[in-house]
Amino acid sequence: MAGEHLAREVAEQPAVLAGLLEAERERALAIAAALRARDFAFVLIAARGTSDNAARYAQYLFGARNRLPVALATPSLFTLYDAPPDLRRALVIGISQSGESPDILAPLAAGRRQGAATLAITNFPDSPLAQGAEFVLPLHAGVERSVAATKTYTAQLLALAMLSAALGDPGGGADAGAWRDLAAAPRAVEGALGLDGEIAARAERYCYVDRLVTGGRGYCYGTAFEAALKLKETSYLLAEPYSPPDFLHGPVAIVDEGFPALLIAPGGAAFADMLDFARTLHERGAELIAISDRDELLSLARTPLRLPVAPPEWLAPLTAIVPAQLLALHLARTKGHDPDRPRGLSKVTRTR
Amino acid sequence: MAGEHLAREVAEQPAVLAGLLEAERERALAIAAALRARDFAFVLIAARGTSDNAARYAQYLFGARNRLPVALATPSLFTLYDAPPDLRRALVIGISQSGESPDILAPLAAGRRQGAATLAITNFPDSPLAQGAEFVLPLHAGVERSVAATKTYTAQLLALAMLSAALGDPGGGADAGAWRDLAAAPRAVEGALGLDGEIAARAERYCYVDRLVTGGRGYCYGTAFEAALKLKETSYLLAEPYSPPDFLHGPVAIVDEGFPALLIAPGGAAFADMLDFARTLHERGAELIAISDRDELLSLARTPLRLPVAPPEWLAPLTAIVPAQLLALHLARTKGHDPDRPRGLSKVTRTR
Repeated sequence: MAGEHLAREVAEQPAVLAGLLEAERERALAIAAALRARDFAFVLIAARGTSDNAARYAQYLFGARNRLPVALATPSLFTLYDAPPDLRRALVIGISQSGESPDILAPLAAGRRQGAATLAITNFPDSPLAQGAEFVLPLHAGVERSVAATKTYTAQLLALAMLSAALGDPGGGADAGAWRDLAAAPRAVEGALGLDGEIAARAERYCYVDRLVTGGRGYCYGTAFEAALKLKETSYLLAEPYSPPDFLHGPVAIVDEGFPALLIAPGGAAFADMLDFARTLHERGAELIAISDRDELLSLARTPLRLPVAPPEWLAPLTAIVPAQLLALHLARTKGHDPDRPRGLSKVTRTR
Repeated sequence: MAGEHLAREVAEQPAVLAGLLEAERERALAIAAALRARDFAFVLIAARGTSDNAARYAQYLFGARNRLPVALATPSLFTLYDAPPDLRRALVIGISQSGESPDILAPLAAGRRQGAATLAITNFPDSPLAQGAEFVLPLHAGVERSVAATKTYTAQLLALAMLSAALGDPGGGADAGAWRDLAAAPRAVEGALGLDGEIAARAERYCYVDRLVTGGRGYCYGTAFEAALKLKETSYLLAEPYSPPDFLHGPVAIVDEGFPALLIAPGGAAFADMLDFARTLHERGAELIAISDRDELLSLARTPLRLPVAPPEWLAPLTAIVPAQLLALHLARTKGHDPDRPRGLSKVTRTR
């Protein structure tokens, strides 16, 4: 069946996440302890594609829970302009499934040369990225055969969340609440996988969509990017991610009757804004696909995808991406594409 | 005629830029001198919409020319989560035409409370943003009546470039090269305005385009965002901006025969990558609209828009956006829309 790798890897996520938690909790605490001895004023994250969407999550995660400002690296400063900025007071994190992208290696190498603390988050602990970093947090996701990354994405989110919990937990395990939340994450993801049959049945409606926007805010802002990326990679539609304020600042002009919008809106501090946004789009005639656990928002959607488990907001991105992954899978299938072999893509992209 | 405000404001840009240079050079040097006495490790910029695209330019500008890492603020940390990160070692810059957006005011206010240096770049020196900042660089762009921002965008770019030149120029004017480059910018913009008639004649071809990607890299990465935003605001097409590596990492799968792509590719260190990207898209059958001064790239385009003046790369964004502004204007007109009154937009967006 088309997309068998993708389907299997999406389904593997609860086991991958549980394995990562078990295998790397101690290491996350040790890295956090070592980092506390370093003086850094901000975090710089280098990543591309799916990994960059995990980096967007880290902006909210480290910002809200660890008071750390996070900058996303601009790789061309390192690779094209030969003008690395001053990173002496940075913690530089490289996120890459393969650990091989030159444009992720370069910022990490510059940080290390300048004496910054450096951390690699990768599925390959022997990769050049891991070898070039002072600290390594491996993902343990197993081989990912689908070109569209899924289990490595949620593993990256979890690795970041474990690091955040560890940084906020100088006692080495005393922040029991955060670790309890983390321990519950694999089961919440399992719950979202239960939507598979429903999404398979509903995907056909969107077979001829060729453009769509996705929306998310706060912790789930990066989820909107990742959902859009999955849809583009597997189903060749132009899906553009937005936060509500950015969309309302101009692009909202494109919305007309039937314009499709995929909203990622689990409960939490960002929910009220997402609900307002859903109402605005709905009034303008947009067709909503909603991923949420909240009735007020789901009731506005033509296609409500109800999350059966509502994790705490800081971990909601792990769960909320799953229905979008399933939609990408089933939309590709109903269109007759093989999402395991998107046209023109290979697994490692050697951009600089 | 539809879009008269937009047309007039696009045409005013050389005069606005020349006026800003004249009025604020001394102040930029004074701000830079004061900032040199402050210890900041990175820059945090809060902005939305068009102003955020100016902020993207600043990431490359301050990074490459001043060795300053630049983070783009995540306003919801301040407005929704009540969790401002630690900004004590930041320079916080707010960029806003109106100076009134609550989501731009909040990060600046948090920075100021924490003792960070704060700078407002705004068209309204009496606005709340300006009043809340320690330093203010006014834009002098005059009233902007079109909803789609043009002259305030290029004025923001120039204000940032003046600050960068001043920061790199401890002697208060000794970096004659940078200031000479800046003095030539208004004339380069004037040159690009000469494309008006050609773009008016060519716009009709794209009347029924409903999706398109824009591409830019390095200094012109933000230009790709701004070009996409203008097209969305005025012509209601879904235009999504990309750097070549990000596009090749997945979204390239959407490209098929005739898929339209607008490439912003002036000469400079990023040009070779943009040329490779143009070749890749061309081989896949994409239709290219190219803004460049270089024959190799223009010759691949169905619609080559030749920049008559090639400024140094660090100032190329000021000039390279102009043909995209004109395309947005003429495309809206040929579609029968009034770009001065996009559906559902007003000038100040009070998002948080």
